[in-house]
Amino acid sequence: TQTYHICLLPGDGIGPEIIAEGVKVLNAVGAKHGVAFSYTEALIGGCAIDAAGTALPDETLRVAEASDAVLLAAVGGPKWDTTDPEKPRPEQGLLGIRKALGLYTNLRPVQIFGALAGASTLKPEIVDGVDLMIVRELTGGLYFGRRERFYDEEGCGTGGVAGQRAYDTLEYREYEVERIARQAYQAARKRRNKVTSVDKANVLETSRMWREIVHRIHDEEYPDVELEDLLVDNTAMQLINRPADFDVVVTENMFGDILSDEAAQITGSLGMLASASLGDGVALYEPSHGSAPDIAGCGIANPLAQILSVEMMLRYSFDMQGAADDVRRAVTAVLDEGWRTGDIKDSDTPADKLVGTEQMGDLVAAKL
Amino acid sequence: TQTYHICLLPGDGIGPEIIAEGVKVLNAVGAKHGVAFSYTEALIGGCAIDAAGTALPDETLRVAEASDAVLLAAVGGPKWDTTDPEKPRPEQGLLGIRKALGLYTNLRPVQIFGALAGASTLKPEIVDGVDLMIVRELTGGLYFGRRERFYDEEGCGTGGVAGQRAYDTLEYREYEVERIARQAYQAARKRRNKVTSVDKANVLETSRMWREIVHRIHDEEYPDVELEDLLVDNTAMQLINRPADFDVVVTENMFGDILSDEAAQITGSLGMLASASLGDGVALYEPSHGSAPDIAGCGIANPLAQILSVEMMLRYSFDMQGAADDVRRAVTAVLDEGWRTGDIKDSDTPADKLVGTEQMGDLVAAKL
Ligand SMILES: CC(C)[C@H](C(=O)O)[C@@H](O)C(=O)O
Ligand SMILES: CC(C)[C@H](C(=O)O)[C@@H](O)C(=O)O
Repeated sequence: TQTYHICLLPGDGIGPEIIAEGVKVLNAVGAKHGVAFSYTEALIGGCAIDAAGTALPDETLRVAEASDAVLLAAVGGPKWDTTDPEKPRPEQGLLGIRKALGLYTNLRPVQIFGALAGASTLKPEIVDGVDLMIVRELTGGLYFGRRERFYDEEGCGTGGVAGQRAYDTLEYREYEVERIARQAYQAARKRRNKVTSVDKANVLETSRMWREIVHRIHDEEYPDVELEDLLVDNTAMQLINRPADFDVVVTENMFGDILSDEAAQITGSLGMLASASLGDGVALYEPSHGSAPDIAGCGIANPLAQILSVEMMLRYSFDMQGAADDVRRAVTAVLDEGWRTGDIKDSDTPADKLVGTEQMGDLVAAKL
Repeated sequence: TQTYHICLLPGDGIGPEIIAEGVKVLNAVGAKHGVAFSYTEALIGGCAIDAAGTALPDETLRVAEASDAVLLAAVGGPKWDTTDPEKPRPEQGLLGIRKALGLYTNLRPVQIFGALAGASTLKPEIVDGVDLMIVRELTGGLYFGRRERFYDEEGCGTGGVAGQRAYDTLEYREYEVERIARQAYQAARKRRNKVTSVDKANVLETSRMWREIVHRIHDEEYPDVELEDLLVDNTAMQLINRPADFDVVVTENMFGDILSDEAAQITGSLGMLASASLGDGVALYEPSHGSAPDIAGCGIANPLAQILSVEMMLRYSFDMQGAADDVRRAVTAVLDEGWRTGDIKDSDTPADKLVGTEQMGDLVAAKL
């Protein structure tokens, strides 16, 4: 039988609890579809800092590179928060593995599960039919540009105000924009065939270059896809105003970070949203939410975003579309039956049945 | 009698129509409160490009600098959209005047008028009580850092992929963060005494410096104000999730651009939101919305954000608190009576009475 090797990165906070449910679902899928999954666990984030002094040990990268896909839970926590540039930070693990594996495409689908439509803080008629995909560039821009902090004795260029100075650099190259644009057009062709390209071309030079390249790739290779430009500030508005109008939204790294979280919140159930980070080799799958240190170890975290990241893994890494559909159907069925973790439980709906992390995983696995 | 000299910058699109209503209201205020306003009009944005080849003619800057306050309407339009770095763009007028007048503080209050609560796409119980103030740094960061685009023959650092490269620089200096932090704490003291400082300290060096300085100024000078840090992506979520919890939100230029538009959209009535840009000298007041070229010249644009920017001018530039309160009361009364421009008219409320730009200005002026 076909065996896939999965690198498991539980990370911090609720990570170990939710990733166990992802594994449970993978095993159930394997049993049903006649494939085997083997797992190797490795350290990333805060736990890696504690154990090895760095958020991304070499060993972790070796395991990831040797795997067929990486399943990550979440990193970070107040224990490791610092503004001291000398100290390691959990996020360096995440940024490091994205860069090392060349994961330049981050897909963040935003959909509303019918059973959870009421969870949104937006009116039902506004969120009705929301089904969009943020395509975020993930290995460029401000996240990976040159940065520095120093003390400027002379106060250069300020007429002599001495003090600290810091900068970060937002840099893009032509091929980086070309390849993410292609990803967006390809995603659109499998969806509603529309791409919204988000930039700040009225201010940034990188945005003006972005806009030109996105249009050139469109005209040369994907003229059949509908393309519109939207400024990032306007997009932040329109996502609230008419979220159902968006299909694929493509944008650079930092804008994508902000807008994908905004779009996720529109659903009101962040605990349901997964993401895929793709490159030319091994891909990485993770929930869109964080490590929720406040509820770590309590067995109450929602594992569904992790389970839906398994769905994405089946779809994008193993091309097991049937199995992926199964996982989604299982999650939908469990929700339709009223099973809820605390974060998605609606106190006004007495029919909702509260369950913990493990039970939720069991319920989904049982449907497979 | 006291005379104030106002520099009027109508700009493009609906600009000339709405600024006329701002002037109408200023004149009514002057008559009632025994002060006189004199006006000098100047060119900015697209109309300045057409007339003078530059978005900010020297003459405009001279008029602005010689005035007691600047009232701006809006700039820009598709006619001048370009990604060609050689061509002038309307926004350069706005950015140029902000920098030239040293307007480093942008205050964007976000409040809901009771009569318009239904306009929000968010549920009534979520927007109930929303009353926040975005304090955006306005003369630093990506907007004013070094930027460049060039062709890289060698594909330096990419293993030889030749192509275009572009970068923008996000730079801050200690004194820039110190002064905007002080503005935020001072604003908070006049409000609910709480500041949320927004950054991306888990990635950006400028954010880590920002966070340290915001905390130092807090501890040294404003320990009585409540201070919290929030990452920009999380803020984009929380603004939708629990907007009423925010009081003052302080952040750097680009994050402020995105978050202030998001926060504005939460009200559902962008045509109602004004902003003040303050420095150490002459200040500038403008609506938060754009130049709406699609409805320019039709006499249907909503002048209320422009009129509320007059309210801010009275408050911040002339310390005429009573007059400012009058303007706000007048606007509230007109709305309570059901008068609406098209953008804020609710088709489900038959009692709403549709009026045009001029009539709306007349109605407000008549209440003064
Ligand atoms: C943890 C952080 C560095 C990360 C990011 O900003 O990319 C996270 O917010 C995300 O979106 O995956
Ligand atoms: C027109 C544009 C340059 C401007 C900005 O980004 O600052 C506008 O969006 C604003 O917020 O005032």
